[in-house]
Amino acid sequence: MKHQNFILIISGPSGSGKTTICKKLLELDKNLFYSVSITTRKKRDNEVNGIDYIFINKEEFLEMIRKDELLEWAEIYGKFYGTPKKPIFENLNNGKDIIMDIDVQGKRKIERNFRGRVISVFLIPPSKEALIERLRKRGDLSEEELFQRISLIDIEMNFKWEYDYWVLNDNLERAVMDVKKIVDVERLRGKFILI
Amino acid sequence: MKHQNFILIISGPSGSGKTTICKKLLELDKNLFYSVSITTRKKRDNEVNGIDYIFINKEEFLEMIRKDELLEWAEIYGKFYGTPKKPIFENLNNGKDIIMDIDVQGKRKIERNFRGRVISVFLIPPSKEALIERLRKRGDLSEEELFQRISLIDIEMNFKWEYDYWVLNDNLERAVMDVKKIVDVERLRGKFILI
Repeated sequence: MKHQNFILIISGPSGSGKTTICKKLLELDKNLFYSVSITTRKKRDNEVNGIDYIFINKEEFLEMIRKDELLEWAEIYGKFYGTPKKPIFENLNNGKDIIMDIDVQGKRKIERNFRGRVISVFLIPPSKEALIERLRKRGDLSEEELFQRISLIDIEMNFKWEYDYWVLNDNLERAVMDVKKIVDVERLRGKFILI
Repeated sequence: MKHQNFILIISGPSGSGKTTICKKLLELDKNLFYSVSITTRKKRDNEVNGIDYIFINKEEFLEMIRKDELLEWAEIYGKFYGTPKKPIFENLNNGKDIIMDIDVQGKRKIERNFRGRVISVFLIPPSKEALIERLRKRGDLSEEELFQRISLIDIEMNFKWEYDYWVLNDNLERAVMDVKKIVDVERLRGKFILI
């Protein structure tokens, strides 16, 4: 049985654990391809170019927009973020399923482009307090950024209604297994079969 | 998190393993309630009244129809089969998810009555030959019944297109785990949450 391959989008408020869950998932499932976003923001010390993000400058980013090489992009606080087209199409053609860690605006654009092939998961933090605590501990945000993120939590949480699945991230291992199960089960929707 | 509870319907051609999978699933998942069908056909030696079917006579069955106590029913080769309403409603009210092993006609009726709350799984046998072999080995069918079942396989297989999920039953343990995952994942669609 061969399924129709899909794009799995993982969203959730900052600090909900999107990136960690994506990384763990990639270790568990060799048929997944992780779409690395492109950004013009500065690399943080704990980040690796090409793994966490592809870091480029603004001119390069604008050039990619002009050449129509991005599936979706957005400007947030003066920094650009985008999803490169080529790896997505190549990997879909090779039968891989795609996972991406993207915000709700990005999700909406991807859904419009890949109608019927997108599965969306919203990560629910155990509580608002836990979320703020996690953001603070991560230590990679300035006080101003932290304040911005916190003030956005309620708004971000309300986007959960437009997602297919909700995964509560009160326990990382269980949350990873929940997302892995979603991937497995979506593959049972496959409509190609040999009998 | 509390999900909207659902009715999981398992269909598949005779001999595809519906009943076995339902029984195994009940052992794995204590939040499932198995809807036992009512029938007027004769009990076979390996069957237990109240577990495999509820065996009643034709007059009792017609009385249940008159009293509107059946969610759906059908007459097949002169025998009646039906799904009793009361246990379904009681268990849904108690927050249980329902599983039932039912044919495509029954599924359509249940879907009409519980719009948006039905999840359907079609069991795919590994091959037509394996299916015939399994039916023969089961030894509970007369030659005539066996012939009827075999001639229906192709027709039954074509109903797979109207099911949400396909589970290949080439390996019982894996097939059971696939259905268990479907149950787990459908519970992540829950739209009630405390945060």
